Amino acid sequence: MTATQNDSSNNRLTRGLERLAEIDPHAQQNVINAMAEIAPDFATYLFEFPFGDIYDRPGLSLRDREVVTIAALAALGNAVPQLKVHIGAGLNVGLSRDEIVEILMQMAGYAGFPAALNGLNAAKEVFAEVSADSD
Amino acid sequence: MTATQNDSSNNRLTRGLERLAEIDPHAQQNVINAMAEIAPDFATYLFEFPFGDIYDRPGLSLRDREVVTIAALAALGNAVPQLKVHIGAGLNVGLSRDEIVEILMQMAGYAGFPAALNGLNAAKEVFAEVSADSD
Amino acid sequence: MTATQNDSSNNRLTRGLERLAEIDPHAQQNVINAMAEIAPDFATYLFEFPFGDIYDRPGLSLRDREVVTIAALAALGNAVPQLKVHIGAGLNVGLSRDEIVEILMQMAGYAGFPAALNGLNAAKEVFAEVSADSD
Amino acid sequence: MTATQNDSSNNRLTRGLERLAEIDPHAQQNVINAMAEIAPDFATYLFEFPFGDIYDRPGLSLRDREVVTIAALAALGNAVPQLKVHIGAGLNVGLSRDEIVEILMQMAGYAGFPAALNGLNAAKEVFAEVSADSD
Amino acid sequence: MTATQNDSSNNRLTRGLERLAEIDPHAQQNVINAMAEIAPDFATYLFEFPFGDIYDRPGLSLRDREVVTIAALAALGNAVPQLKVHIGAGLNVGLSRDEIVEILMQMAGYAGFPAALNGLNAAKEVFAEVSADSD
Amino acid sequence: MTATQNDSSNNRLTRGLERLAEIDPHAQQNVINAMAEIAPDFATYLFEFPFGDIYDRPGLSLRDREVVTIAALAALGNAVPQLKVHIGAGLNVGLSRDEIVEILMQMAGYAGFPAALNGLNAAKEVFAEVSADSD
Repeated sequence: MTATQNDSSNNRLTRGLERLAEIDPHAQQNVINAMAEIAPDFATYLFEFPFGDIYDRPGLSLRDREVVTIAALAALGNAVPQLKVHIGAGLNVGLSRDEIVEILMQMAGYAGFPAALNGLNAAKEVFAEVSADSD
Repeated sequence: MTATQNDSSNNRLTRGLERLAEIDPHAQQNVINAMAEIAPDFATYLFEFPFGDIYDRPGLSLRDREVVTIAALAALGNAVPQLKVHIGAGLNVGLSRDEIVEILMQMAGYAGFPAALNGLNAAKEVFAEVSADSD
Repeated sequence: MTATQNDSSNNRLTRGLERLAEIDPHAQQNVINAMAEIAPDFATYLFEFPFGDIYDRPGLSLRDREVVTIAALAALGNAVPQLKVHIGAGLNVGLSRDEIVEILMQMAGYAGFPAALNGLNAAKEVFAEVSADSD
Repeated sequence: MTATQNDSSNNRLTRGLERLAEIDPHAQQNVINAMAEIAPDFATYLFEFPFGDIYDRPGLSLRDREVVTIAALAALGNAVPQLKVHIGAGLNVGLSRDEIVEILMQMAGYAGFPAALNGLNAAKEVFAEVSADSD
Repeated sequence: MTATQNDSSNNRLTRGLERLAEIDPHAQQNVINAMAEIAPDFATYLFEFPFGDIYDRPGLSLRDREVVTIAALAALGNAVPQLKVHIGAGLNVGLSRDEIVEILMQMAGYAGFPAALNGLNAAKEVFAEVSADSD
Repeated sequence: MTATQNDSSNNRLTRGLERLAEIDPHAQQNVINAMAEIAPDFATYLFEFPFGDIYDRPGLSLRDREVVTIAALAALGNAVPQLKVHIGAGLNVGLSRDEIVEILMQMAGYAGFPAALNGLNAAKEVFAEVSADSD
């Protein structure tokens, strides 16, 4: 085994947690708590693959990666809790509220008005929570 | 009726066709041809609503709007012809091939590896067509 | 600009609001309220495109359009609030409770028994609210 | 066992085949041929449940049932062969081409423009086949 | 009509109720109650087709059939109430909690991490209810 | 870094390729070829995460994992190429043709008859290819 393999192995989890902390400082603990009783290994996979492998790649900024994830989850429409996490994450990595609203309105043409409306309602809740936190 | 209403009405179609021409110079004619026999009004709605109303809004660049649409269509997985149009459109408005590949790989975590693989295969076809055209 | 363009432009929003009032007298205000803080323009698009452009077309009755929308939303299964609005709308434009139940039961064969069950549960809630209102 | 139970049992398959013949005279043989090698019992279930149980119910006309099925399949977007069968069936039970086009255009607002476009393309193919057959 | 047809007809409902009782002793009454006001015939179809026709077939064990249903419902992600019923049913027909967790974690690769997380959260709720019941 | 971490890192790819070879001896090369021009890293992720991390876990047999994947992909209905790969894989790890047919027929109740029909058609093609190969 080469040092490089060694290094990349060890860093996967570390880098995933770093990327996750950048997009949402509470997400690591929330995921660990949610999965603790049921599937603790799954928390590790979540840190390692989407965040350590994909979000850590250099080809796209974290801001752009949140655009991608918000659009995908709003289109699918079956993962509101995760959509809300990524709307909050989008705010943390540089998307404005107006940009997030634009992304969600654009869904009307590609996944239908109900998908857009439900995404906008999720954003309304996240924006209200963020405003309350910052009071 | 105010001049503004007048103006905004008339410009909806015009602006939609302008935005569409920016993302894909052949799309207007392709849509008109495809819908000619079956639903010519639908071509107009397509120019007016997603492009004249949404893509024309100032809050998000055309490049970002293509990130949104590519992510949504790859996640849904049931609209490969439109995904290919928007992969080509993404190239036309400033996305690099590598950025498009990153968007599609990111789908593995949010819509599954098959959705990502099928998106990457669609990109491979579009990239090959674009390369052939530019020879 | 011709008078016709003028007219059709101005009427899009007006006609959308008329169609919406026919299917649900409270929907306009509900949508405006829901979108007020987050995306007020989106309420306008909703009135203009699905209702002013599509529902207003002469080729299909409002009753048939509600059959279409109830079937589509029950099949997709990811838009229960909108499904409930359109079940209520169906009652307002001439669908009987029995016809709505038939539409939803038919989903068992095309989108699966869970989609049908969830649609029927949504209908049960709407029918109970309507009965309570009319007491 | 009562005569009624007896009767309803025997008639399920018979009535399903009658309803299917009304919407598409070739469908029975096509389904039998398609499933012959792989799952012949599945052809029987298809005749019995969606057609013998559901389509045979009195609460909705065959014309309305085809409106429901076309809308659901166009919204789901993952069953083009079956959508084409039901577009043809719609024509056979009294839907006009224009009404089918209206149903499919309405999908733009509930499942997105790509779902509507793909449904309209399916209709274009079916209409062309029907026109060719009638020459 | 032969005795066999007679027999198979009469047994469809009986056998469906037997299979359903094996996977969940409360399901029959729950379904009857849920559908009583809105669509009592639909309860009968549910007992007859998925359970009397399909679950009763000899080619796959009830344990394997629950693997199939849990995977399908977790992938679709739009039928959480039914997913919870079938997670409980899986426990009743021999799946261990660990096996159910494995099925749901595997969804991360095929339907995305959010689908897997939502499935695992549903399982956490069911496991807690089952533990509380057995106290 | 501990030896264990080292070991687990190095084995992820190795174990993923071993599991993949067990379910389909041609898949590794097919994936490498398909992704070579467009996204070679994605082939690695595919070997590492779904196969090295998930399929390699001890809690579920490879045979059961293929039941899970076939059910999920047939339910989603938007990944026919991958469904065909996993139908072939199911045969390789101990599922009989009849068991695969049962899994796909069961989809009629959970994702609709069209999803089941399209899955059965995919199976028919795979079974024919396998029979031809073994002549």
